[in-house]
Amino acid sequence: VRTSPAPVVCTVASPDRPGIVAAVTAAIAASGGNILELHQHTDRDVGAFTARIEVDAGVDLEALQGFFDDLQVSMGLTCTIYEGGSRPRVVVLCSSVLHCLSDLLARIDLGELSCDIVAVLSDRTDAAALASRAGVPFFHVPVGEDRASQEAAVAALLEELAPDLVVLARYMRILPEHIVEAYEGRMINVHHSFLPAFIGANPYRRAHERGVKMIGATAHYVTAELDAGPIIEQDVTRVTHADRVPDLIRLGADLERAVLVRAVGLHVEHRVFVVANRTCIFR
Amino acid sequence: VRTSPAPVVCTVASPDRPGIVAAVTAAIAASGGNILELHQHTDRDVGAFTARIEVDAGVDLEALQGFFDDLQVSMGLTCTIYEGGSRPRVVVLCSSVLHCLSDLLARIDLGELSCDIVAVLSDRTDAAALASRAGVPFFHVPVGEDRASQEAAVAALLEELAPDLVVLARYMRILPEHIVEAYEGRMINVHHSFLPAFIGANPYRRAHERGVKMIGATAHYVTAELDAGPIIEQDVTRVTHADRVPDLIRLGADLERAVLVRAVGLHVEHRVFVVANRTCIFR
Amino acid sequence: VRTSPAPVVCTVASPDRPGIVAAVTAAIAASGGNILELHQHTDRDVGAFTARIEVDAGVDLEALQGFFDDLQVSMGLTCTIYEGGSRPRVVVLCSSVLHCLSDLLARIDLGELSCDIVAVLSDRTDAAALASRAGVPFFHVPVGEDRASQEAAVAALLEELAPDLVVLARYMRILPEHIVEAYEGRMINVHHSFLPAFIGANPYRRAHERGVKMIGATAHYVTAELDAGPIIEQDVTRVTHADRVPDLIRLGADLERAVLVRAVGLHVEHRVFVVANRTCIFR
Amino acid sequence: VRTSPAPVVCTVASPDRPGIVAAVTAAIAASGGNILELHQHTDRDVGAFTARIEVDAGVDLEALQGFFDDLQVSMGLTCTIYEGGSRPRVVVLCSSVLHCLSDLLARIDLGELSCDIVAVLSDRTDAAALASRAGVPFFHVPVGEDRASQEAAVAALLEELAPDLVVLARYMRILPEHIVEAYEGRMINVHHSFLPAFIGANPYRRAHERGVKMIGATAHYVTAELDAGPIIEQDVTRVTHADRVPDLIRLGADLERAVLVRAVGLHVEHRVFVVANRTCIFR
Repeated sequence: VRTSPAPVVCTVASPDRPGIVAAVTAAIAASGGNILELHQHTDRDVGAFTARIEVDAGVDLEALQGFFDDLQVSMGLTCTIYEGGSRPRVVVLCSSVLHCLSDLLARIDLGELSCDIVAVLSDRTDAAALASRAGVPFFHVPVGEDRASQEAAVAALLEELAPDLVVLARYMRILPEHIVEAYEGRMINVHHSFLPAFIGANPYRRAHERGVKMIGATAHYVTAELDAGPIIEQDVTRVTHADRVPDLIRLGADLERAVLVRAVGLHVEHRVFVVANRTCIFR
Repeated sequence: VRTSPAPVVCTVASPDRPGIVAAVTAAIAASGGNILELHQHTDRDVGAFTARIEVDAGVDLEALQGFFDDLQVSMGLTCTIYEGGSRPRVVVLCSSVLHCLSDLLARIDLGELSCDIVAVLSDRTDAAALASRAGVPFFHVPVGEDRASQEAAVAALLEELAPDLVVLARYMRILPEHIVEAYEGRMINVHHSFLPAFIGANPYRRAHERGVKMIGATAHYVTAELDAGPIIEQDVTRVTHADRVPDLIRLGADLERAVLVRAVGLHVEHRVFVVANRTCIFR
Repeated sequence: VRTSPAPVVCTVASPDRPGIVAAVTAAIAASGGNILELHQHTDRDVGAFTARIEVDAGVDLEALQGFFDDLQVSMGLTCTIYEGGSRPRVVVLCSSVLHCLSDLLARIDLGELSCDIVAVLSDRTDAAALASRAGVPFFHVPVGEDRASQEAAVAALLEELAPDLVVLARYMRILPEHIVEAYEGRMINVHHSFLPAFIGANPYRRAHERGVKMIGATAHYVTAELDAGPIIEQDVTRVTHADRVPDLIRLGADLERAVLVRAVGLHVEHRVFVVANRTCIFR
Repeated sequence: VRTSPAPVVCTVASPDRPGIVAAVTAAIAASGGNILELHQHTDRDVGAFTARIEVDAGVDLEALQGFFDDLQVSMGLTCTIYEGGSRPRVVVLCSSVLHCLSDLLARIDLGELSCDIVAVLSDRTDAAALASRAGVPFFHVPVGEDRASQEAAVAALLEELAPDLVVLARYMRILPEHIVEAYEGRMINVHHSFLPAFIGANPYRRAHERGVKMIGATAHYVTAELDAGPIIEQDVTRVTHADRVPDLIRLGADLERAVLVRAVGLHVEHRVFVVANRTCIFR
């Protein structure tokens, strides 16, 4: 018997049907597990069931996996057990704007994020010093004669690094579909606007021209359509008539780093579920 | 068989022990119920289990009640079924500051709150016109020669009106312990500060003197100790050096009405559980 | 000599040039006025100067007006004196969603807004009871055979009522250009989204489909282009995956009433200046 | 003639009297200065006048200083000119909790704060690596046999370093009065609560026990009385019943770094004025 030395996280995803919670929680109880926190949501628009369950230390992990395998067969449930202590491997892509990368590195250094950045990739060299100071390998993948060869180099590096998660921390290039698809649900981008306002380039300049009274930032999973993937986190801050474009860029930088860090934290703690291009998030 | 024509809410409160979720959800499944939303929390500091479960229309209510009676005996669970459509009877106490009462009445009129105000009690007459326009009985309980006789009159009226919930909407008097105890967990007060800052009188004047940059309001269940009961909802707003005491009163009024209305809404939807003088709130 | 018995508000608008503040404040000082609060802003993008100055009671109003007339001639400044105590006349247009109208009426009743609603116009009859209870004349302007004749009726009523400010409190129809132009800078609309996201119809349904994590509301001056006028106030609130369209409508209603009431309050206190389709707001 | 190559900031502090704005702005105009932004506030409770004026490049600095010297004599005004480009020298004191120091260093590195950290002092050694990586001298001032000798060492180091600003970035010791007084209005502390709630030790534990629904952080100038100095910035975030003390510490860390960084930024841009133990802040 292998009992868990620390609390574990179980996730459940399934088309909705009666009895799922009863079946899953019975399996946990029969494995000697005590539930610490259970979040469950049924998306009634599309009939999708999702749950996240924290089970206290002491649960019999092998028994639980056995029950979950049975539930896969009998009820079609996808149940996953995440033991504590594993740290997802993250690759960060960035360009020359570095506050998001800087914040991710600082928070990992402070122990605030449970993941490791295994490499920084960039089309520019600005991030090299920051990565080096943090002891993280830096890969410069410049854009030379053609865009396709740079993209192929990025794809090859990612394949080699085999990250659990890719983070676009103000990477100013649009990735090709084949890379995006390879990391579906595992690639997070931060966009410097309150989506769906100001999709695309120069959102702060456009926000200033429109005279908005709040600006925002959005962290989302990347999909083939630009800035249209499932939103994980958003935040806004007030601005006034006295704030010009450089002020918006400065104020927005704080939103960008905050939503990106929160989104990465939610992802690595298995709190995010994607249902019909929306996210279900259990905090 | 009496099946529910609308979704029902089930609440569960119990000392923590393994298997509660499994037992309750098995009971719901065996009664033909489909869970729409389940919130569960175990307070590890005191070992208290709480859950709120929304079950879709079609559940067999008699069977479910039978199962819940059995769980009371076998596991010591307190499970309660709330059928949709019932509207709690609310009595509001106020003095001469009327924005909270005004907002409660307006929102019930607009259908935003699922309860009825059956009476307004006040030590002043200012609220009479507002109550009358809304078609709500108004009772003037003035303070005459002694405080005790006024309190006895309030207690007698409350006993006669037998409300499900008492709301202190800027009622400027401290109620005697015997009234407070009679409505434990069913009497909500709004205090015009971010508790525990500025307990007691004149919070806005004291906030101005201290030079705070945000002011707040707090809705809480009333207990014998002043402004010390379980907090249901709080909110704050930014203020500046330019805001003097009348500005704080004006800005704070919006917080007070907002937190009070939200707290009443949460209470009447059975979303608030009290554990160790704290609230557990399932939104 | 007619000295002001209460503080007065002076506004200044002008193309930018050196010496404006010196000239205006010298005029105030020479009129025996003491400045309580001065806000000034120069929009460097378009070179527009705006200022709002509160002058304490005791200023010689005739002398000040004389100085301001001189500054109009010598420097091209548009200076306006607003004496305290005047209450702008407001006409509200609404349809069948009434929380914004309800809130405006309640706040005027409570003394929180310094204006009077002199009439409610609607293409529906739902608001009649609310207006009647508040003692405000209600005009039903139904849409019959053709849209143009309804619009002509609205225009005629507005001309007769001659309001200082027109408020579109969830009026679900688009007004014709001739009405919009007649009330340029004096007609405020509330849109139930965080503009420029979700311009036009059904913003909450579209927000739900997009899976946003915050919804918003926007109060703006009406211009010929739909939802594109100068923004006065915006606010947002967090939503979760558990919030369906009716929840967004309910949560958004609180934003709508809040931003509309704040925008009306800012307008009637002469705190809003329009510069290049943006607003400059002195709080 | 020495004209300013960049915009300059002028501050004015004085007991209130009529004509100050007129006199100061006339001086600016006579020096060839064009006002870009003017903020002015009169604290009517204590009769204190404060103003901050941004003047465009091209103003004759010697002429302006001459006019300001005259105004000191004739009207008792304290007018100060801050030329652009100077970077205040900052000393940071910290203990073993490092997120605030980490954030200050990162933001200076990113160019987001216009000051330099010239030294880090600590009673612990935890910050040494962080300081070293940023190229900032680190001084370990441990507490040995008696508290007084450690305080004397800190005082001596500060005297030698002669900083413009001292920042207590979660420095867990109370400084003696002689140090506090030497840096009156130039020493900023961050307290991990929404002051005046939870003054003193263990604010997060006490917040959890009280069951608050929001936690906060406060940056303030240090005075002799503990946590009672003029507040510069505060912020709050929502928490729920599910957040235990370690969660509050984690969530609060983000508030602490944010309010401290904003307070330092406001201070070094000459935007903060202290009046009667409150701050007047021109953003």
